[in-house]
Amino acid sequence: MKTAAYAAQSADSDLGPIEIQRRQLGENDVHIDIEYCGVCHSDIHTAHNDWGGTVYPVVPGHEIIGRVKAVGSKVSNFKEGQLVGVGCMVDSCQTCSACDDDLEQYCENGAVMTYGSEDPILGGPTHGGYSDQIVVDQKFVLNVSEKLDTKAVAPLLCAGITTYSPLRQWNVKAGDKVGVVGLGGLGHMGVKIAKAMGAEVVMITTSPEKGSDAKRLGASEVLVSKDKDAMKQQAGSFDFILNTVPVSHDLNPYVNLLKRDATMVIVGALTPLPELSGGGLILGRKRIAGSLIGGIAETQEMLDFCAEHDIVSDVEMIDMQDINTAYKRVMDSDVKYRFVIDMKSLKS
Amino acid sequence: MKTAAYAAQSADSDLGPIEIQRRQLGENDVHIDIEYCGVCHSDIHTAHNDWGGTVYPVVPGHEIIGRVKAVGSKVSNFKEGQLVGVGCMVDSCQTCSACDDDLEQYCENGAVMTYGSEDPILGGPTHGGYSDQIVVDQKFVLNVSEKLDTKAVAPLLCAGITTYSPLRQWNVKAGDKVGVVGLGGLGHMGVKIAKAMGAEVVMITTSPEKGSDAKRLGASEVLVSKDKDAMKQQAGSFDFILNTVPVSHDLNPYVNLLKRDATMVIVGALTPLPELSGGGLILGRKRIAGSLIGGIAETQEMLDFCAEHDIVSDVEMIDMQDINTAYKRVMDSDVKYRFVIDMKSLKS
Repeated sequence: MKTAAYAAQSADSDLGPIEIQRRQLGENDVHIDIEYCGVCHSDIHTAHNDWGGTVYPVVPGHEIIGRVKAVGSKVSNFKEGQLVGVGCMVDSCQTCSACDDDLEQYCENGAVMTYGSEDPILGGPTHGGYSDQIVVDQKFVLNVSEKLDTKAVAPLLCAGITTYSPLRQWNVKAGDKVGVVGLGGLGHMGVKIAKAMGAEVVMITTSPEKGSDAKRLGASEVLVSKDKDAMKQQAGSFDFILNTVPVSHDLNPYVNLLKRDATMVIVGALTPLPELSGGGLILGRKRIAGSLIGGIAETQEMLDFCAEHDIVSDVEMIDMQDINTAYKRVMDSDVKYRFVIDMKSLKS
Repeated sequence: MKTAAYAAQSADSDLGPIEIQRRQLGENDVHIDIEYCGVCHSDIHTAHNDWGGTVYPVVPGHEIIGRVKAVGSKVSNFKEGQLVGVGCMVDSCQTCSACDDDLEQYCENGAVMTYGSEDPILGGPTHGGYSDQIVVDQKFVLNVSEKLDTKAVAPLLCAGITTYSPLRQWNVKAGDKVGVVGLGGLGHMGVKIAKAMGAEVVMITTSPEKGSDAKRLGASEVLVSKDKDAMKQQAGSFDFILNTVPVSHDLNPYVNLLKRDATMVIVGALTPLPELSGGGLILGRKRIAGSLIGGIAETQEMLDFCAEHDIVSDVEMIDMQDINTAYKRVMDSDVKYRFVIDMKSLKS
């Protein structure tokens, strides 16, 4: 079936309208009318081919909220009109040890990402949420509470789970002192979620002017990483650090903030990180780890947690036609904290 | 009390004989006649002031085996003639959370190292095991089995615990695939201990010629890290990697060998490590950590484990007078795998 979308046609072109093919509803599929789609920095990296390997045209978008339009004959958990979400993945092998462990994001045979993966049914690249419709296997469709502000739920599907998963996996608990490095789309969700878990959250930022906003979001304190005295004063005091910085940066000052045996998890920087001091790790048995989004079961858990704690993203709504301006503003860090596309605009 | 020792007088001087002051036996002290002392690479770094801060004269040596000559009035666990050991530490605050957790090596007030720390009783630097006698608080004296080859037990006090502790802390168990990177004083102990824990040990080395020796020590396989095809073939297959390389080196090829959620622990390289790929960690939730020797209780556990499994170090015996030649050979990696000083030679 044909449907409307927005795509980049090359690394340096603006995004514009396109008609794309979606598969016919299979027996395990859910057909979704997309209402909202968040704009993630990964969308921009992929559209611009920053990581290589982009196949054009690319339809980005993996923070999808919509309503069920139809379900396949073997689908019993979803019904027409239900509010649902789709995140970064739309399929995985379901047979490897990662899939067995509900960690489809680490699928050993390669998860099928919402956009830019090889489409196992139609061939060619999968197409994401900058579109008015999508058809997804029921295992990768999430149930979304009607309780929250729907449009502001969209970014939870990527920014929410990316920060929730490491906080949960490393057992952040009430009373823990948690640092969140970087206040952007990921960081602002990290602050809200860690706070809701009962942690004492310290926003760690290079920009003192972000302080008041961080406190509004739930941080009890702001630590300016350029302030050497302040950094020294808080050395060895953090139970956990969530590092959301999306670019290469020096990890050593943050390692120094960790308590003995504590971990800093990197969720943003896929790029090479400059020289890391072995001694900084050795002299306190400290740990650095990475974490990639979260599995489907954990994503559902996160959505339920956010509904329970009234957590959504801070969003700025745009029309589909504003996407190129929005990309420029994301690159300039000029958004608090996530753009969300109102997909009604695509039809106008 | 005065006793004989060997010391470096400056960063570029050879080590030579010196007379040093040891404290009088206190009520909690154990007076030890030193029989053997291992030669650790740290001894050389300290003698040469490679890490800065060395106070001369420095008497190195923290792999000490000897017999109890006398005990203080409050010492009941040790008696005259008993075989004992002293490792890298001789005191700590005993009040901080690290000491409470039996992790004196991470003492928040600074453990008193066997040599080169401020001596809390005599003032000046503490003096290590290149000496015929030492007086140590009973809490830092280890019980050594008579069952093993005594002189080859000495290196367990540093090289043994440095490798045993991370293997134990990260729960290496029977059947795990464990990589040991680097075959030197630390690496050869890592292979023996991991093998005794039931792991399938793979020696990972840049030098194919070390293969046969690694297998003799207990490795079931040798992986040459320069062989890109072999490294690719084993990607994602290791449950744990113990990295004993003592100098700066690229961690990324080893991170790539880890399974999802697996850890590489660095015990050798205190120096800056070159660019680390964030993506390498993120795309498999992989972990890098550091580890420093081990606490006193765990050191005793390691000595008991080694006695039970007949594990000692491979050693080459030297006289005290040979120490400068031995240092040169250690720097040339020309020792299999640890020099041990026969302290009888000091008196000759």
